[in-house]
Amino acid sequence: MSSSHAPSSPGTLSYEQAGVNYDLIDPLKVTAQRAAAATAGHLAAHGFTEVVASRGESAYVVDVGPFYIASIVECLGSKALVADEMATLTGRPWYAGIAQDTIAMAVNDLITVGATPLVVQAYWAAGGSDWFGDAARAQSLVAGWKAACEVCKVAWGGGETPALAGIVEAGRIDLAASCTGLINPKERLSVGDRLAAGDAIVLLDSSGIHANGLSLARKLLERLPGGWLTEIDPAGHPGLSYGEALLAPTVLYSPVTEALWAAGIVPHYCANITGHGWRKLLRHPGAFTYRIHTVPPVPPVLKFIQQQAQQDDREAYSTLNMGAGFAIFVPADQAERTVAIAQGLGIGARVAGQVEAGPRQLLIEPLGIRFGDDDLQLR
Amino acid sequence: MSSSHAPSSPGTLSYEQAGVNYDLIDPLKVTAQRAAAATAGHLAAHGFTEVVASRGESAYVVDVGPFYIASIVECLGSKALVADEMATLTGRPWYAGIAQDTIAMAVNDLITVGATPLVVQAYWAAGGSDWFGDAARAQSLVAGWKAACEVCKVAWGGGETPALAGIVEAGRIDLAASCTGLINPKERLSVGDRLAAGDAIVLLDSSGIHANGLSLARKLLERLPGGWLTEIDPAGHPGLSYGEALLAPTVLYSPVTEALWAAGIVPHYCANITGHGWRKLLRHPGAFTYRIHTVPPVPPVLKFIQQQAQQDDREAYSTLNMGAGFAIFVPADQAERTVAIAQGLGIGARVAGQVEAGPRQLLIEPLGIRFGDDDLQLR
Repeated sequence: MSSSHAPSSPGTLSYEQAGVNYDLIDPLKVTAQRAAAATAGHLAAHGFTEVVASRGESAYVVDVGPFYIASIVECLGSKALVADEMATLTGRPWYAGIAQDTIAMAVNDLITVGATPLVVQAYWAAGGSDWFGDAARAQSLVAGWKAACEVCKVAWGGGETPALAGIVEAGRIDLAASCTGLINPKERLSVGDRLAAGDAIVLLDSSGIHANGLSLARKLLERLPGGWLTEIDPAGHPGLSYGEALLAPTVLYSPVTEALWAAGIVPHYCANITGHGWRKLLRHPGAFTYRIHTVPPVPPVLKFIQQQAQQDDREAYSTLNMGAGFAIFVPADQAERTVAIAQGLGIGARVAGQVEAGPRQLLIEPLGIRFGDDDLQLR
Repeated sequence: MSSSHAPSSPGTLSYEQAGVNYDLIDPLKVTAQRAAAATAGHLAAHGFTEVVASRGESAYVVDVGPFYIASIVECLGSKALVADEMATLTGRPWYAGIAQDTIAMAVNDLITVGATPLVVQAYWAAGGSDWFGDAARAQSLVAGWKAACEVCKVAWGGGETPALAGIVEAGRIDLAASCTGLINPKERLSVGDRLAAGDAIVLLDSSGIHANGLSLARKLLERLPGGWLTEIDPAGHPGLSYGEALLAPTVLYSPVTEALWAAGIVPHYCANITGHGWRKLLRHPGAFTYRIHTVPPVPPVLKFIQQQAQQDDREAYSTLNMGAGFAIFVPADQAERTVAIAQGLGIGARVAGQVEAGPRQLLIEPLGIRFGDDDLQLR
């Protein structure tokens, strides 16, 4: 969704070099966003209105009177290709984690606007009917999908399982999830208007690469003689292969946002840290400076990718989550409670910095990195 | 979604021969449906409940108090491959109609439960960034998507435009739509409990093949020396090519269901006639006999497919819509008004038959066809 990119150095493997060219996607995206915005008036025919500020946020929000409805569709991306490789190498299916990743892509975006996810729909488009004939793999996908629904307390409403030979590659599957939720009561709406100087930035730990940066991670294989089974951290995590580490499922953050609400904490803003890495902390359109004083530990797999791709910190933090999967902006006096609530749910968290009045920029002080207004253009 | 199929004769090209093997998909589907049903209890954590009867219907429905929320995700299928072929042959993009087809797949299912579609999300997964670099094609997709939203009075909330090299084939796009709507007021809920002997069956005309049966239609090309440009009905429709006729966009039926509500007509049941053709008229789980006394005219493209595939009427009506795109079951004394309302919106319609007490079967009397309980197992 970005129209600007971090610069690359010689020898460095950047995200664009890994095969995703945003310059081709972005004009279409801008045209589509404008066309989409022009359809908002149709809601008036039904007595409803859109929440205009949700355009440009991670989920679309409609005011239906007693509460808001939020909805979204999200793609897994290319992570399933790693699962396929690892299945060949290990003889077991890896789709339970892939299912969790897919649901996380939708749920973690939906909750940024203050929504409680209620219903998930499955979109599993295979390259042919035979994809579903591998019973162990299919059962793994189903079991993982169900388990992720349990964590998020959402109902799995149904979905589509088309066989799309000629569109999806043979032996592959295109996975996506749609999610519908409610912002209820309406005070939970979080589309940016509450963010203020003085707010604390709480970062929730990621479990690894999650599902963004996989094109880069796969491209890197060219540089690894040991391939997917390369040990990424023989001293710290003996036996942990690159493939297995990449396949750590994305953390589902909705239990945290629900627990915050139950504890009386209403975030002023949230950002799901996906594509574009830490630049997503600049998601809010306002003129604020985000000053980071503490960075989370970098998961071994991300440290490994950074080293192998010869990325400096600026490039790595501009592309990968580097240990921070989700950002919650709360009043400073609620920051420590926010951390404690996340930790009580088994999700690492820390107060990482604060919001200040000033030019729109992110300052990662421990690393001497600055991302400015030009580094993220999502709208 | 079926686990039984119409029989084939020698020389006949059936749907299964065209490459979709439901025997491989169905076990996964059954497992997934069971797992999905087991997640319904999670809604209680939020104070809500599912509408159990919506499991097995075309959209999933949750009771959130003041109204019901319906949601769905639907895939276009393989129709875009025909658009790609015709673009090569004609030098112009055909994606405006494809966009309408994709939205129709979601909207026409969602309205069967009595929902007003409110928000559509776009899922456009391309085989590479370069798909979006063809500006004329991309603009055609955007324009058609927007236009279909206008017809349905839905807001286009946003969506995903991933580039999925390695999963989606190069040069292709996997299109889907998710849709969220409200059943408001709650009396509009239509999940089958009102259907009764004596109800009339109103059939709304299709515009052609819509987006089901395209695997068969594409497979048929082997038998056409003139290829996609074969004239399908030189006398009746001179110059109309097979490709162009196939690409007639799916009719959007939500204006009809909305107008019925405005006129005080609440359907007792609805069936979207998609895969499995007229067997979808057996969708309701109850023991009813559906007696058809009048069939709609068969669109030339479907007549052509039937002839070329050497299908008898039974096979054709079990696979294709044969001119009927949507079925509305209403009290007999509202049938003529229902027809008039559809026709007033420019959508052909007719009272085609009635519901009777009796064994679960569909009798298409003008054609001497009977489909029984064994011919459609969707649950």
